[in-house]
Formats: sequence, structure tokens, C-alpha cells
Amino acid sequence: MHSQKKMTETMTPVLGDRSRGETIVVALGGNAILKPGEKGTFAEQMANIRNTAAQLARLIREGKRLIITHGNGPQVGRIFRQQELGVRAGLPEMPLYICGAMSQAQIGVMIQQAIHNELIQNGCPRTVVTLICQTLVDPASRAFRDPTKPIGSFYSETEAQRAMAEKGETWKEDSGRGWRRVVPSPEPQGFPEIDAIRLLIDQGIIVVVSGGGGTPAAQEPGGALVGVEAVVEKDLAAQEVARIIGAETLLILTDVTHAMINYRTPQERAIGKVSLEEIKEYHRQGHFIPGSMGPKVLAAIRFIENGGKRAVITSLENALPGAEGKVGTVVGL
Amino acid sequence: MHSQKKMTETMTPVLGDRSRGETIVVALGGNAILKPGEKGTFAEQMANIRNTAAQLARLIREGKRLIITHGNGPQVGRIFRQQELGVRAGLPEMPLYICGAMSQAQIGVMIQQAIHNELIQNGCPRTVVTLICQTLVDPASRAFRDPTKPIGSFYSETEAQRAMAEKGETWKEDSGRGWRRVVPSPEPQGFPEIDAIRLLIDQGIIVVVSGGGGTPAAQEPGGALVGVEAVVEKDLAAQEVARIIGAETLLILTDVTHAMINYRTPQERAIGKVSLEEIKEYHRQGHFIPGSMGPKVLAAIRFIENGGKRAVITSLENALPGAEGKVGTVVGL
Repeated sequence: MHSQKKMTETMTPVLGDRSRGETIVVALGGNAILKPGEKGTFAEQMANIRNTAAQLARLIREGKRLIITHGNGPQVGRIFRQQELGVRAGLPEMPLYICGAMSQAQIGVMIQQAIHNELIQNGCPRTVVTLICQTLVDPASRAFRDPTKPIGSFYSETEAQRAMAEKGETWKEDSGRGWRRVVPSPEPQGFPEIDAIRLLIDQGIIVVVSGGGGTPAAQEPGGALVGVEAVVEKDLAAQEVARIIGAETLLILTDVTHAMINYRTPQERAIGKVSLEEIKEYHRQGHFIPGSMGPKVLAAIRFIENGGKRAVITSLENALPGAEGKVGTVVGL
Repeated sequence: MHSQKKMTETMTPVLGDRSRGETIVVALGGNAILKPGEKGTFAEQMANIRNTAAQLARLIREGKRLIITHGNGPQVGRIFRQQELGVRAGLPEMPLYICGAMSQAQIGVMIQQAIHNELIQNGCPRTVVTLICQTLVDPASRAFRDPTKPIGSFYSETEAQRAMAEKGETWKEDSGRGWRRVVPSPEPQGFPEIDAIRLLIDQGIIVVVSGGGGTPAAQEPGGALVGVEAVVEKDLAAQEVARIIGAETLLILTDVTHAMINYRTPQERAIGKVSLEEIKEYHRQGHFIPGSMGPKVLAAIRFIENGGKRAVITSLENALPGAEGKVGTVVGL
């Protein structure tokens, strides 16, 4: 019905090959976006993301369908800090979960552009989008009785006491460095927008979603959603997406080639191909650092327990052999 | 293949009625999110967006397929101001187009939640998502030779001169109030992610996209995308989405019931149902304020010229009768 066509319309990426390839949920660690010691400039982040995109494009060119999740710690931390400065200058602030959504767009648009470019330069154009997606959490769960996730800057005890009294927030003293706000880190329990993810991925579109664990929301009895001040572990959110979508592989990319037992001791040993029971035993024994390798291993365990084919923890550089189970800590049946 | 199902999975909204309803691209004006005189707190914005969602839900319950675009002026302005404060405190800054993407997520997640809630409370659950989408622009176009869109705060001439010398930016003196950075306001020329929008809307999913005109990107000869410091008029971006998708109706919602000729003169007169030729003549005569009613009328004209069925400019409260052409400035064949 519309007659005029502009040149750019025919230049936009087309849908990819619709033949059913394996679906991989990739959980990108912080190092995929920002390296230790970097300041976090746009140029630094874009350069890192270009490298990341080159790795992910190899998977896509092999015919894999990708759902990409990522960390957002330094980015949401900076948004939060900018907000704090804004409040002092009289600007209104957004809740934490809105800041989280903003960080998803900030990082997501860089990832989608970088993957698009990598693919088009390799003669394999594909549509790549970022979906802003909420993560359902249960405010009645234990995580809400003991908030553990620190966010924002350090403050004095006086300021912390005031925030606790005035806003009902929870603040904790942090190893002599001052007081920080802490929020719950609840379990992900589904995604209101999951149908959209499924639909896009089924048509060969690459989706960036649930960055930083997604925007936490609680569902009221009637089904209405309400934003929640919390942070969901991104690796657990990635597992939950992979489980519900029915992905074959959960690929957790970080800065090391393997998970380790007896980490940083003389008995340190890399875990390669490992059975579910064995890695569950290591996890029970406390080999993995909470908030670091811990949630990655837990996500891998849950994925296999819930019927996933393969969960892999490896370095970004090993994305392709890792996805095939040839490198890294590979949990499978 | 995955055995365990959690309760929340069955509670998530299902796909809507797939019978082919009319597709409407809605362009929400700033007043749909923030009213004049408001400070821009989260509570204010959420309350306004709930009202907006109630209007849009009426359209959805009538069987319309909705693509929703929106303004982002005050929101991206605040993000930009927070960034400026952050830079003084040593924090890195993001380019304008990344700030724009952040504002899309900030506003988008509120809109998607509010519409979801309005629909589920009316027994009509639907999936609603925000897509972070780029808008293609041509850096060789005239808009880039004469930047006109002011962004950020007012600065002294010294500071402006330094930014021009060091960063190659364009700054202009603004009516004695100080110096402001200005960026180009180029024409939208397509969307790299258009396939994703089409796919979602075809399956009855409601999509929030191209907020603030979308994230401007230029396409290099080989097809690679690169972000551009510019701001696309949101009403023109909405028209471009509507044109490419083949939407039946472009519904531009603002704070007045009609566009006016001889606005704010004794001869002021509301424009109701109007032919394409007639409104083009009014536009040529300069009846519509640039940056305000001007781009709305231009978007309506372009939509009909490109084969659209109906373009309507009316108030938010008249969304439903407006979409049916019963109220507002209605341009059609």
C-alpha cells in the first residue's frame, strides 16, 4: 500500500536463516564490556564490545541462535552515582530498577550495533535487537528479609541512618569503608515478556535481553506488575531465560578458561568436563566465590537439572569451542 | 524438554488475539509522560503514564495493534545534566545517542508496565515490550550542515568556545540566556531493527519503540552502523515506522484537541477533517509552530502522501474517537 521506497529500506538487515539451529543463551561477564583498571569511557567500552561481538558472531555464523545477557555493575553504578550528584543539584531521581533498565539500553545498543557490524562485514547480515524486559521476583521470599547486594556510593553513618529512617532503606557498614545501601538479590521467577523473546529468536533474530539480571518486578495477586528495588544475579536470570525458552546450551563467558576447585591454594585444579553430581558436590563444599564464580556454577547446575543439554563456563575468547563443549568447565548429562 | 514449570510461567501474559486488527502507530507527546510545571519525579511520571496507558488500552481492547513512540525531551535532558555533573566529579560520559537510548528504556519500561497492568486488570492480558531501536540518518544531508536542536544546559561563551575548539561541537548563543550545544535534526530514513517490530506486531505484541525519535545511526558504505550525535523529530520517526510497517493509522497525541490555523490570533480556527491538499497549503503558509505543531502536521502530511489511510492529531484523552477519525485534526484521502 505504500508506494515510495527509500534506498535504506533495502539496505536494512534481513531475517537470518530460519533453519532450526541450536539456541544458546550467552551470559556475558563484566570483562566483555569493561576490563579491570579501565575508567569506563565510551571508547573503552565500545572497543571491548567489538571484541566480544567478534566472538559472538563466530557462533552466529555457525548457525547458532543467540540470546545474549550481560552484566551491568559498573554501568548502573555510574548511573546511580550521576543520580546522586543530580539530587544534590535539585534533579529528581529514578528508582534503582529504572536505572537498571537504563543500563540495559546503554549496553544493549552498543552490543546490537557491534554484532550487526561484525556480521554485515562478514557477509552474514542479521537483525539484532535489545529488548527491555522485566524479571519476576517474589517479595515474600527470603532474599527480601536479608538484603545483601550493595549499590551506590559509600556514605557516613549519619547519612545512612537518615536514609533508613526517611526512606525505609537498608544500609550496612562495609568493612570500615563507610555505609552503603544494600538491596535484596532475589531468585528470577520468569519474565512477563518471554513470548517476545521466543518469537524473535524463532525467526533468527538475535536478542539482547535481561542485562544485569533484568528489571525486577513483582506480580500482584491480580497479575499487575510493580517495580521492585532489588538486583537479580545475571547468571541466574540467564539460566531462567534458557530454561523457559528451552535453549540447548547455556554459555557463561567470563575472564577465566575454567572454574577451579581449591581456588588460589596449592591444590588449585581446573574443572573440565564434569558430571552434574560432581559439580554439585564441589558447590556444596564451597569451592566457588559467592557473587563471582558461585552464581555461574549455580546457574550451570540449575540449567542441567532442569533439562538443559549443556552448560559451559569459559573465557570470552573460547566462545566457539566452549559452545561445542570442547573447552572450559562443561556440565552435561 | 524442560520438566519443571513454575507458577509464574503460567501467569505471564499470553499473546493477544491474532486476528488481523488495524495497526496504529501512536506518537505520544511530552504531556503523556510529564505535565507542564511538574518537576519530573518518578511518581509524577508514573501517574501520567498510567493515565496514558488507560487511553491506549481502550484502543487495544478494540482490537487495534499498537506501536507506541514517545517524546523524551525532559528525560534525556536530565540524563545529560546528570552526566555533566558526573564529568565534573571525574566520571566518564556517554555520547548523546547513548543517552537517548537510556531515556528510551527509562520511559519504555514504565509504559510497558502500565499498559500491561491496565490490560490485565481489564481481563485482556497482552505482552508489551520496549525495543531499543536505531534510526538511520544521512550525515551528508543538509541537517548536518546547520545543527538546530539545542541540548543540555546553558554555559558561558568561554566554555562554549572551548567545547567547539576541543570537541568540534557546534554551540549557539540562545536569546541572551547563554550558550547551548546544538546538534543536527536529520530526517529518519529507516530502521535497522524494523523486522523485529513487524514480527512482534504481527503476533499481537504491543511494541514501544523509537522513543525520542530513536537512536540516530549512520550506515557506512559497507553497511556498518555508527552512532551519530543528532536528534530525530519523534513525530517524523513515528511516521517513518508507520510508513514502512504499512500501518493504517498514524495517531499523534498531544495536549490540544486540534491543530489550529491563525493560532493565537482573533482568526484562530480549529482544523477538523481536512484534505491533504488543504493542510499542505496551511503548512506552506506557516500556520504551525516549528518544533511543536509543525512536525506533527508534517508527519501527518507525509503519512498520507505515502499511502497511509488516516493521520490524526488530537489530545490524549481523545485517543479512541481520534483513532476512528471522529475527533481531532483528521487528514485522509
